[in-house]
Amino acid sequence: AADLPNLDLFPRDEVCFQGQKVAMVAAEDPDLAEDALALIRVRYEVLQAVVDPIAGMAADAPEARLGAPTRDCRDEQGRPRRNVVGYSELVEGDVARALAEADVVVESEYRIPYFHQTYLETSCATARPETNGRVTVWTSTQGTFAIRDQVAGALHIPHGRIRVIGTQVGGAFGGRNDVVLACYAALMALRTGRPVKAVMKRDEEFLDSSPAPGCVVRLKTGARSDGTLTALEGRIVWEAGWAGGADGPERLRALYRVPNLRLEGYGVRTNKPTPGAYRAPGAIQTAFARESNLDQVAAALGMDPVELRLRNALGPGDLSLAGKPLERDWLRETIRRTAEAAGWGKRRLGPHQGMGIACAEWTNWSGPTNAAVTVAEDGSVSLLTGQVDITGLHTVLAQIVSEELGVPVEKVRVSLGDTDMVPYTVVSAGSLAAYTAGTAVREAACRARERILRAGAEFLQTEEEVELVQQQVRVKGDPSRAVGLAALAASVHWKPEGPLSGHRVLGWVPPHPSFSVHVATVEVDPETGRVRLLDLVAGQDVGRALNPTLVEGQLQGGAAQSVGLGMMEGYRYGEDGRLLNPNLLDYAIPTAMDLPAIRTVLVEEPCSDGPYGAKGVGEPPIIPGAAAVANAVHAAIGVRITELPITPERVLAALGD
Amino acid sequence: AADLPNLDLFPRDEVCFQGQKVAMVAAEDPDLAEDALALIRVRYEVLQAVVDPIAGMAADAPEARLGAPTRDCRDEQGRPRRNVVGYSELVEGDVARALAEADVVVESEYRIPYFHQTYLETSCATARPETNGRVTVWTSTQGTFAIRDQVAGALHIPHGRIRVIGTQVGGAFGGRNDVVLACYAALMALRTGRPVKAVMKRDEEFLDSSPAPGCVVRLKTGARSDGTLTALEGRIVWEAGWAGGADGPERLRALYRVPNLRLEGYGVRTNKPTPGAYRAPGAIQTAFARESNLDQVAAALGMDPVELRLRNALGPGDLSLAGKPLERDWLRETIRRTAEAAGWGKRRLGPHQGMGIACAEWTNWSGPTNAAVTVAEDGSVSLLTGQVDITGLHTVLAQIVSEELGVPVEKVRVSLGDTDMVPYTVVSAGSLAAYTAGTAVREAACRARERILRAGAEFLQTEEEVELVQQQVRVKGDPSRAVGLAALAASVHWKPEGPLSGHRVLGWVPPHPSFSVHVATVEVDPETGRVRLLDLVAGQDVGRALNPTLVEGQLQGGAAQSVGLGMMEGYRYGEDGRLLNPNLLDYAIPTAMDLPAIRTVLVEEPCSDGPYGAKGVGEPPIIPGAAAVANAVHAAIGVRITELPITPERVLAALGD
Repeated sequence: AADLPNLDLFPRDEVCFQGQKVAMVAAEDPDLAEDALALIRVRYEVLQAVVDPIAGMAADAPEARLGAPTRDCRDEQGRPRRNVVGYSELVEGDVARALAEADVVVESEYRIPYFHQTYLETSCATARPETNGRVTVWTSTQGTFAIRDQVAGALHIPHGRIRVIGTQVGGAFGGRNDVVLACYAALMALRTGRPVKAVMKRDEEFLDSSPAPGCVVRLKTGARSDGTLTALEGRIVWEAGWAGGADGPERLRALYRVPNLRLEGYGVRTNKPTPGAYRAPGAIQTAFARESNLDQVAAALGMDPVELRLRNALGPGDLSLAGKPLERDWLRETIRRTAEAAGWGKRRLGPHQGMGIACAEWTNWSGPTNAAVTVAEDGSVSLLTGQVDITGLHTVLAQIVSEELGVPVEKVRVSLGDTDMVPYTVVSAGSLAAYTAGTAVREAACRARERILRAGAEFLQTEEEVELVQQQVRVKGDPSRAVGLAALAASVHWKPEGPLSGHRVLGWVPPHPSFSVHVATVEVDPETGRVRLLDLVAGQDVGRALNPTLVEGQLQGGAAQSVGLGMMEGYRYGEDGRLLNPNLLDYAIPTAMDLPAIRTVLVEEPCSDGPYGAKGVGEPPIIPGAAAVANAVHAAIGVRITELPITPERVLAALGD
Repeated sequence: AADLPNLDLFPRDEVCFQGQKVAMVAAEDPDLAEDALALIRVRYEVLQAVVDPIAGMAADAPEARLGAPTRDCRDEQGRPRRNVVGYSELVEGDVARALAEADVVVESEYRIPYFHQTYLETSCATARPETNGRVTVWTSTQGTFAIRDQVAGALHIPHGRIRVIGTQVGGAFGGRNDVVLACYAALMALRTGRPVKAVMKRDEEFLDSSPAPGCVVRLKTGARSDGTLTALEGRIVWEAGWAGGADGPERLRALYRVPNLRLEGYGVRTNKPTPGAYRAPGAIQTAFARESNLDQVAAALGMDPVELRLRNALGPGDLSLAGKPLERDWLRETIRRTAEAAGWGKRRLGPHQGMGIACAEWTNWSGPTNAAVTVAEDGSVSLLTGQVDITGLHTVLAQIVSEELGVPVEKVRVSLGDTDMVPYTVVSAGSLAAYTAGTAVREAACRARERILRAGAEFLQTEEEVELVQQQVRVKGDPSRAVGLAALAASVHWKPEGPLSGHRVLGWVPPHPSFSVHVATVEVDPETGRVRLLDLVAGQDVGRALNPTLVEGQLQGGAAQSVGLGMMEGYRYGEDGRLLNPNLLDYAIPTAMDLPAIRTVLVEEPCSDGPYGAKGVGEPPIIPGAAAVANAVHAAIGVRITELPITPERVLAALGD
């Protein structure tokens, strides 16, 4: 830090969490760098750590970061809370009166720990200084421009001096939205005048990347005896880590009509890494609380959990969380079809077996994207986009080009343009990529088709209407007058309009909510507390499945992660703030051995804005699984686990109670 | 060849010239490959070589390529000519009658040898097989798509399976238009499944790349005593090498009005490499003959060579070689201003000193090109183009963006898109690059500016007229209401229209002729025959010099090459077809020691189509220099050298005559 008086890359006086970078060493090989690292001595004075967010916001808590600004907040006794960095409140109707008038009221507290994206390859960045004062960065990322922005901001250099080239992504889940190493590599490259490569080890990933935040949620729901929800009072306390903020509490309502609300959201500074995005950020934790609590309401009412959800679900015309009226009965349709596929109410269950349902909502993001389509002389097609390829995106984009131009998908190739080559492009995240880039690609391909038809008519010297079929431009109704796409492409290069191409830049496509529903069937061993997942049906309102195999893969992958969060994963901290499980041995994630074959239900009721009616599909499948498992455990053995993950120890403890 | 039954990469039975590739070896290092090469034994039966094109077309000449098809042509005695592969004729008026009626008739024969582009770096290509069956090729080239076309054609694979990435060009001059090694590297990569790099040695460059063809020209010009040209009869015999064709004879007229013509062009197969493009292909050789012959006409008439040229020059409304009426008096203006700058008729000359003038015409090419302009959040601008950067092209394109958007040129960066990223783009050759790509870039930047103004008006919430000045969008007449370009760029990303960008694809910009005029002043040592170039003024009709320094550099570099061809360069063959000077020791090119400071005259009379009135400038300066030197030598010592290069030996021999 002393060497970089104007930059905030290293702490100056206070290290706020285990794993925080305090110095940087580069050498010609990693062994030499390790040896050099060993020569750096840091003396720490150990302060008291803030590990639990509830304890951390108490009036007598230690400061997680000495002298850092906090938000003025008072506790019930009017004493100033400590370490609060964010607060927001959402009030509708009169929640106190509604709770007083409710036929049943259910209140519980839920706890979710930090958890990690555990992408396949660890973070890496390579930076090369250029002779013109610029720096080129290669990194695996969800958004090359996001990296450019963040490197520019961190190093205080203009955006135009940075070129970011995205490499293949081996796993992202939101963890590749943000700079992890690129600004360090770029800085070292600019300082040394030499190329620099930086790669994380797995323990470093756990300690200092951008995991999902933990939180503590308190929910109180009121309902009439017919199952109509009337009141929701809640408080979510987000762990902000050492430098984060706080999400709002809106998602605690999300996908149900509740006329009276009072929801509070806190962000509390702790001695942990700054949390970031993990697939459906904010939604997983809130869904666990909300869907667990809703199941408790159903139990209190003696009502079927599916019935309760159908009664309160948002329907056509209701405003979504994003404030937009729903076009169709997407949520109820997804609940019904998923429950049916799972055999809800019909499946014969053995002893200690139970079924649980949970629902989720995600409104996809949108943002700037671009597409340039061009036809080569062999009739094949190139697509250039700035949209990073994750979870098969480029395959889907190739399909869209194929669909619009009628060329086989194998003849479409997709290239990722770097930050010097394409206009600003949003991260491939938030379930926006196929939705938004797919729209741009479709429109670019349409423009290319218009150009093809114009060129074809000129080639055929006709004023009659022409059509593009079977890779030919033909006079409509006279297929004998035709020119092949390859021959046409080769013929136009030297015409004034030039090559066959189409181009589209856009900044925003109006989003729609997508809904997902999981039904889990479990068997619990009352001797060991072990929960075995017998069946998981993942249903989703996908609008239109552009590539059903990839969409099913999304649903299965998301559900697997959701089950992992429900049953295995989570950061475990000692009281001193040390992370106890920063490795894939102690931080378990589900493998094929832990999972049944996840069955999927694709509900295809198109929305009006996405390409061919498609909605964003990436996020929703990770959200409801943990709650579905908790609800199934309750159905199986009658105990309610309110803290994730649902480990054998917790089940046994609950049974003991 | 036996291993590649369907490909024509290696000769099957007959090797047609020294240096022809007969086999290919790849190894993990060059030494190993050399050792392996030494194990290949080839037994040759030596046949009689065709070295001289005139002898080669004689009825009793040996076949340069056994059994290869030739064109049916008869000699003056009606006997079938041998080895003729191309013939064309251009007839206008009645040349026999015009010659008979002329006051003077001058006839001569001129000889020009093969010569080489001698680009700085030798040819190279690296190919990598991709997992999807594609192959990526990196090569220094003037046109990535030209390479893609040629690899596709040579290997019989679809264009879409090849990706060509252009690397920096260290010298081209037409010699990088064509595949030299890329198809061999690509083939070997596809066969071995491994990356392959191939690099030429300098002697291999001379022996088997694509040098400029030699030729023998016979010209007979008739004129009236007032200097008006009335008749031109000519025959040009081009060396086609072992597999080439023939250029037409039109350039023998080029830039003068001659009402009666008969021009013949032959292509004759020889046992030499296939010739290719060298800066102003075809124009250099014809200009040497034409401009020498014209000087002889002036001498015969006792007329000033400048005066003769001014009298017969094409002027406004006259059709250029490309069939287009000249818009302005470009040629005469260039002759006048160049002659004036050189001190024509005024400079005091010593003994054995003389001045010579020569003129040239080049109509630039055009073809498909593209440009995509986008503004970053710091107000800097990116340009993506498929147009390969030679001789400062990308600098000029950056200037055009700078001009249109009013951002400093340092804030504009230019990227070369590869064949997967941009629409088909023509080679950077034929003086088309700044002319054509510059037009596309200007139009793309104009579209970006329109978008900027629209976004700026929206940002400023005004319906009043706005303007883009000093990197701000401002309300016209009220500079206090303004938004900076950087802030504006950052603000629009999430608006429906998205980032600030502009895009243009085009296929053709109507070309215009450009004229160049050289005036050389030489001193000849009658004892040694050595010609010393005292002064060279290179004038050129450039339309508008987009970057005067670069344009001057073009003029000086071209003039240096022209002088090299005039005084030093040229392939020398033995009678057996062996090249005697395949290296830069025996094939001399001019260095700074051989040249005076070349003075330039930029004639800026805009044409109506090029960007800002600019014309193509690359080719014209290489054309007239050799003839100007020959004419100056004649002026100095009264002897006419008709064969290039003008070596001391030839001067001495001519003096001896």
